[in-house]
Amino acid sequence: MRSAAEAAPSILFLPDLAAMSGTVTLEGEEGRYLARVVRAREGERVTATDGHGRLTTLVVERSRPDVVVTVIDSRLEPAPVTSRLLCGAPEGERGDWLVEKLAELGVTELVPVQGTRAQWPDALRTDRWERLAVAALRQSRSAWLMRIAPVVSLADAVAALEPGERWLAEPSGERVDGVGLAADTPVTGAVGPSSGFSDDERKLLSEGGFRAIRLAGSRLRTETAALALASHWAARRA
Amino acid sequence: MRSAAEAAPSILFLPDLAAMSGTVTLEGEEGRYLARVVRAREGERVTATDGHGRLTTLVVERSRPDVVVTVIDSRLEPAPVTSRLLCGAPEGERGDWLVEKLAELGVTELVPVQGTRAQWPDALRTDRWERLAVAALRQSRSAWLMRIAPVVSLADAVAALEPGERWLAEPSGERVDGVGLAADTPVTGAVGPSSGFSDDERKLLSEGGFRAIRLAGSRLRTETAALALASHWAARRA
Repeated sequence: MRSAAEAAPSILFLPDLAAMSGTVTLEGEEGRYLARVVRAREGERVTATDGHGRLTTLVVERSRPDVVVTVIDSRLEPAPVTSRLLCGAPEGERGDWLVEKLAELGVTELVPVQGTRAQWPDALRTDRWERLAVAALRQSRSAWLMRIAPVVSLADAVAALEPGERWLAEPSGERVDGVGLAADTPVTGAVGPSSGFSDDERKLLSEGGFRAIRLAGSRLRTETAALALASHWAARRA
Repeated sequence: MRSAAEAAPSILFLPDLAAMSGTVTLEGEEGRYLARVVRAREGERVTATDGHGRLTTLVVERSRPDVVVTVIDSRLEPAPVTSRLLCGAPEGERGDWLVEKLAELGVTELVPVQGTRAQWPDALRTDRWERLAVAALRQSRSAWLMRIAPVVSLADAVAALEPGERWLAEPSGERVDGVGLAADTPVTGAVGPSSGFSDDERKLLSEGGFRAIRLAGSRLRTETAALALASHWAARRA
């Protein structure tokens, strides 16, 4: 019987993949991942990505004592259409699973926005978040790693947006299942922090073209609203 | 300035609410919750629920040293239409947030199903899950507590279903955004464990009338698929 990992093989994340050629030794985490989690055997083919669209087939030459692979071929996957989330600070440690779930659902960029009512902590858990985004990339076998932007003010985030759809998660908005989204249209969502956006922030978003969208009949926490938005985007781009 | 808790007041969970009348002392967790989290003051009105549809208005008589309230009036909220999830075991501790998020999104019943490929642990974290469901009820100000069923086999769970829509989360299925769900139609979803449903289990679900539904273009973890399903139900019932 093949293990679950073999039945649905994961993808290796190798940020320096573009520079790799010929036969190379895989150092560090990805070598361990290939040997211990994927349990790749000699002669087996595995796929790797740099998280920026490159998909490369590797053949495992040996997995002990170190992992040695040969690069076979490489192709570039086009960038996914932008699905970006401007997100206020959730409560406690909920940012961790926010990152994991948004990445799994194919959000392309998470932009933590500072609010007047709630602030992201000064020391964002950036290293941990990057690891969670990589784990989600492996899980979903994606060639594109979710970008985690530095914390910015809501005004700066809105000013920097390209054209496209803009959705604000808002209990008084129109029902999300009546709102279309073309597969090739960039979309940006805005979700308030645990204490909600202030009136000034709402005004800024409204003037910035954000359309109020109702996700559920009840109040949702920040991270739940973010995940629900991402679920609707994923469905429209499935 | 009023605090966030006052601006968007939470709801008290009092399982024995139906038996309460006149002026009573609130013992235990809900008394502490009212005094310390909601910081209710003398004369303030608060809403309580028993999680089975009863919504009762209480007036706070005093909050120190103990919390004393008077029952003002009570009404019954009709039961929400069934949104039930049959869910295989996710990895690790992910069941905790599965419970929290399903409850927040208005799922009425979580049924943990044993699979041939993955088993829920013998000792389910039932007490912790009940607390998480109660916290979600407070957050969403719902009069109905999500039911957490005992673990059953998939066959028994399917055999026990009433008529209604049945959706299986399945990457090869039809796109979820093309699938309607009438507001008054019960729906049951099935999501496989981390290692997926077996062929026999898929056959059982297919013969049981489960319609294969695609939630995203990529593979989702068990708990992510469950959440995405619940998000689509919430939207159709918003």
